[in-house]
Amino acid sequence: MTDTSRLSGVLSPVVTPFKDDLSPDADRLIKQCQWLLSQNVGLAVFGTNSEANSLSVEEKIELLDRLVEAGVDTSRMMPGTGCCALTDTVKLTAHAANLGCAGTLMLPPFYYKGVSDEGIYANFAEVIDRIGSEALRIYLYHIPPIAQVGFSLDLIERLITRFPKTIVGIKDSSGDWDNSHAMLQREWDDFRIFVGSESFLLANMRKGGAGCISATANVNPAAIDHLYQTWEADDAETQQAALNAIRNTVMAYPMIPALKATVAEFSRDEQWQTVRPPLINLDPEKSAALMAGLRGMNFEMPGL
Amino acid sequence: MTDTSRLSGVLSPVVTPFKDDLSPDADRLIKQCQWLLSQNVGLAVFGTNSEANSLSVEEKIELLDRLVEAGVDTSRMMPGTGCCALTDTVKLTAHAANLGCAGTLMLPPFYYKGVSDEGIYANFAEVIDRIGSEALRIYLYHIPPIAQVGFSLDLIERLITRFPKTIVGIKDSSGDWDNSHAMLQREWDDFRIFVGSESFLLANMRKGGAGCISATANVNPAAIDHLYQTWEADDAETQQAALNAIRNTVMAYPMIPALKATVAEFSRDEQWQTVRPPLINLDPEKSAALMAGLRGMNFEMPGL
Repeated sequence: MTDTSRLSGVLSPVVTPFKDDLSPDADRLIKQCQWLLSQNVGLAVFGTNSEANSLSVEEKIELLDRLVEAGVDTSRMMPGTGCCALTDTVKLTAHAANLGCAGTLMLPPFYYKGVSDEGIYANFAEVIDRIGSEALRIYLYHIPPIAQVGFSLDLIERLITRFPKTIVGIKDSSGDWDNSHAMLQREWDDFRIFVGSESFLLANMRKGGAGCISATANVNPAAIDHLYQTWEADDAETQQAALNAIRNTVMAYPMIPALKATVAEFSRDEQWQTVRPPLINLDPEKSAALMAGLRGMNFEMPGL
Repeated sequence: MTDTSRLSGVLSPVVTPFKDDLSPDADRLIKQCQWLLSQNVGLAVFGTNSEANSLSVEEKIELLDRLVEAGVDTSRMMPGTGCCALTDTVKLTAHAANLGCAGTLMLPPFYYKGVSDEGIYANFAEVIDRIGSEALRIYLYHIPPIAQVGFSLDLIERLITRFPKTIVGIKDSSGDWDNSHAMLQREWDDFRIFVGSESFLLANMRKGGAGCISATANVNPAAIDHLYQTWEADDAETQQAALNAIRNTVMAYPMIPALKATVAEFSRDEQWQTVRPPLINLDPEKSAALMAGLRGMNFEMPGL
């Protein structure tokens, strides 16, 4: 049975703009989200590439409220809400669900390492129980290279079995296609499997996946969505190769500063360069090299 | 020049008691802190072993307020205040400094991996600048096995040089004596170097270190403090061996649940067993084996 509230397609972990005093800039974020929606890309605000874990829960709640007040479509929103502390995760997730966000993307608690599947299961069960909302839709966020804590296939299956209406998908940012493929082969009922990079988008669609949630969707949204829409077309491999070329050009630099430098360049708004510590801005030399690389590929961000 | 506000000796990363609903139990924590002080052990509340990163900033502030209201000596307190988000770290650290805590133990922001020394430096500079308090004393918390982000020797030196009155010490939980030794050899002026395990306490004292901040100080405080006080005595090696034997017995089990099970057993208060997800309680069989091991060594927790 298909649950029409479940998401598919291409989503962007939207980069978060900061003012000079390093406070989040809601106005610029609203504008960026509206542009991404105009490119048919959904809004995984507060992802890793959003510097979400450099923001307090209160800052994230304030930004969510501002987005919703501005009329940004909650049916396209999947904010990241997984924190280290159970109580923080519950507070932020409940707020997102109450605002009507279509889903939340949930990291496991990531400070303590080497924790058991049993402990992660207990954490998710407690979060779901405390929120107690029929409307809650959780997409698991598997990103072991950064969080260091992740979801085994058996843990995912146990969560789906216990919470079939709530645990509805996953973002696999393992960087390991074999892991995504192994999940797809389990054929969990209507479970939405997003790859964490568009470099696996075509492979994912061919095996029944739901789409991708990718850093590069911040800068190359329309082309990524086009492959999602036309993955069965004759030119799909050519499209994939073109997406990879853009991605590899950006990925040659530290990802988040590179994304922000690109948005700054193509929106002609230098304020976008700013990151929060512990990240540092891309230095001008590297930024110039990145822009030269992108312009050499006739890269554009139309409408930004 | 000696800054008399700087700490030395033995401190415990105090385990945090929870009620059945997993909320922090301030009354039990106050009692535990008073007992630790009676054993001459200082209070590094909100350390890794305190499950601090499973608590929200608000929960930590509430617990700190309750401890201070109960008259727990702030001159013996070094709460952990380093969070992922700059704004959280500033809020919690400022609160601890305003309450008069002698120091704060500060993790680097630990979500983003592979960050530069420059980025971590910028984070600490921003925190110190925002708090703007002459009374602030920061002890760096170096625990790469868990945080995955740590402090290089050059970064430490840069921070000391720029903030000589504020960056006053470090807890080295690398588990690598060579790293502690390399820091000691730099001979930074009155910089307080605590090893993260009492197994390195004697070595640290012989090289001019400040003491230790160790998980096991939750359960074996008096004996660890005794070695700290008498490290020049003839029986120091024998004392060190006895401390190691207790530590190794506890460390054979998952550390935090094992500490809590031990406190529960020797205080005859089962509520102490409770941990927050993603940790899980020590199972009864392992708990029984641990207690048999400790009792076989004539281990006691007098006065608890």
